[in-house]
Amino acid sequence: MSRLYWEDFTVGRVFEHGPRLLPREEMVAFAAEFDPQPMHLDDEAARHSMLGGLAASGWYGCAIVMRMMFDGFVGRSEAMGAPGVEEVRWLAPIRPGDSVHLRATVRNVRASLTRPDMGLVRIEFELFGAGGERLMVLIAPLMMAKRPAGGAVQP
Amino acid sequence: MSRLYWEDFTVGRVFEHGPRLLPREEMVAFAAEFDPQPMHLDDEAARHSMLGGLAASGWYGCAIVMRMMFDGFVGRSEAMGAPGVEEVRWLAPIRPGDSVHLRATVRNVRASLTRPDMGLVRIEFELFGAGGERLMVLIAPLMMAKRPAGGAVQP
Repeated sequence: MSRLYWEDFTVGRVFEHGPRLLPREEMVAFAAEFDPQPMHLDDEAARHSMLGGLAASGWYGCAIVMRMMFDGFVGRSEAMGAPGVEEVRWLAPIRPGDSVHLRATVRNVRASLTRPDMGLVRIEFELFGAGGERLMVLIAPLMMAKRPAGGAVQP
Repeated sequence: MSRLYWEDFTVGRVFEHGPRLLPREEMVAFAAEFDPQPMHLDDEAARHSMLGGLAASGWYGCAIVMRMMFDGFVGRSEAMGAPGVEEVRWLAPIRPGDSVHLRATVRNVRASLTRPDMGLVRIEFELFGAGGERLMVLIAPLMMAKRPAGGAVQP
């Protein structure tokens, strides 16, 4: 598959990835290391929380979105990183054993003001559960290299 | 130490935590699992990237901020989770072996419009390197339980 450059991220283009199974052990191990709040670790404590039962740390959700965007298109693109994240919304709990699907939609693009070899791609990431319910939304600008002049042209 | 309720998060209150050492193995293991871009895994590839050398995934930085806010005050507060994140800015690379410090500043507070037992606390988190340079900024609203009427009063 050919590499993706900034020019390939046209407004409205959609990348889909999934499903990916989220095992209980993985989400609990993440919480134990980075977000040891009882509602992410302990079934009984979680039942009495707003989550109504054991649920993943929202930051585990972000890490999974990152991995799925890597597997979906970032890993085969000329990605140069990101200056930050515009917004994250945790809409519904991610449960142990959930099977999730990622949709990435290109919302805006612009050339870099300072680097002629680079552009920005503003992407909305939506993570869905197996039943199609939206679990989280994340909006972030990614930096992408422009296709080199005189370089290989995509077939 | 007494538990912290919503009423304890007054505008301008600051919580500090650190230092925390970020070992190379931990940041590389995180990247291998969740963000396997070459600049987070491989010294040689990282040298040729915008980061100019191996640097942590920005999502590892977020996970560390979460853990440090837990150790700093969330773990002893009546935190009920968060609806999302307002903004993340990755200002400078986090390097293997960096020793970091977290400052959390309460920026706004408001009672919940729908839940009389809960309030929101909007916090700006700043992560600093050992030399005092700002590595990242994260702004998020946290949900906190209000102090129960007739309950234990803080000494």
